[in-house]
Amino acid sequence: MTIAQSLHTIDDERCRLATATLEHIGKRWTGGILLALGRGATRFREILHLVDGLSDRMLSVRLRELERDGLVTRAVEPTIPVSVRYGLTTRGKGLLAAMAPLVAYSERYATD
Amino acid sequence: MTIAQSLHTIDDERCRLATATLEHIGKRWTGGILLALGRGATRFREILHLVDGLSDRMLSVRLRELERDGLVTRAVEPTIPVSVRYGLTTRGKGLLAAMAPLVAYSERYATD
Repeated sequence: MTIAQSLHTIDDERCRLATATLEHIGKRWTGGILLALGRGATRFREILHLVDGLSDRMLSVRLRELERDGLVTRAVEPTIPVSVRYGLTTRGKGLLAAMAPLVAYSERYATD
Repeated sequence: MTIAQSLHTIDDERCRLATATLEHIGKRWTGGILLALGRGATRFREILHLVDGLSDRMLSVRLRELERDGLVTRAVEPTIPVSVRYGLTTRGKGLLAAMAPLVAYSERYATD
């Protein structure tokens, strides 16, 4: 069954779920932050550096949301001063993997 | 190379493109409309029916955007009264196919 055929058969409920997921990752900055974490950034400054135009405030807001949604981990390290590392949960990695075809798609149509 | 590894190597430009695509399809209603077209809806009313809460006005706005972006076709049929059919372009079908893993992801984590 081709992808188009598989989508042809999805029902209202699956469509509603998928739309909610698309609108969730489509929120301003969320996709960029997930990609930055996927690229190996773990520190706040590292993530900030990888996402053009992202402010400290919005990164804090989005990281809290992503942690609340079970997509990102936040580990406090007992260094002096204290330091924090962020990472993707299994679910976060699953989302990133599901986003990968969109990364390829965006590249393919970049010059159009 | 696993998907995570492939994302590990993407550069800033590809990341910027991917983020723009995610934020584009993540706009309120856009994903739902693309999925409705993917499910075979071609009439304005059919699309409206498949996307919970979508208004006539917002469907018109989003269809114009999707047409402008080369994702949706709009064909006027010489019936009396005139009738209009919408469909996905090749690029639109490509985007839908790239979204399919996210549909599967959203279903997998639906109950969490």
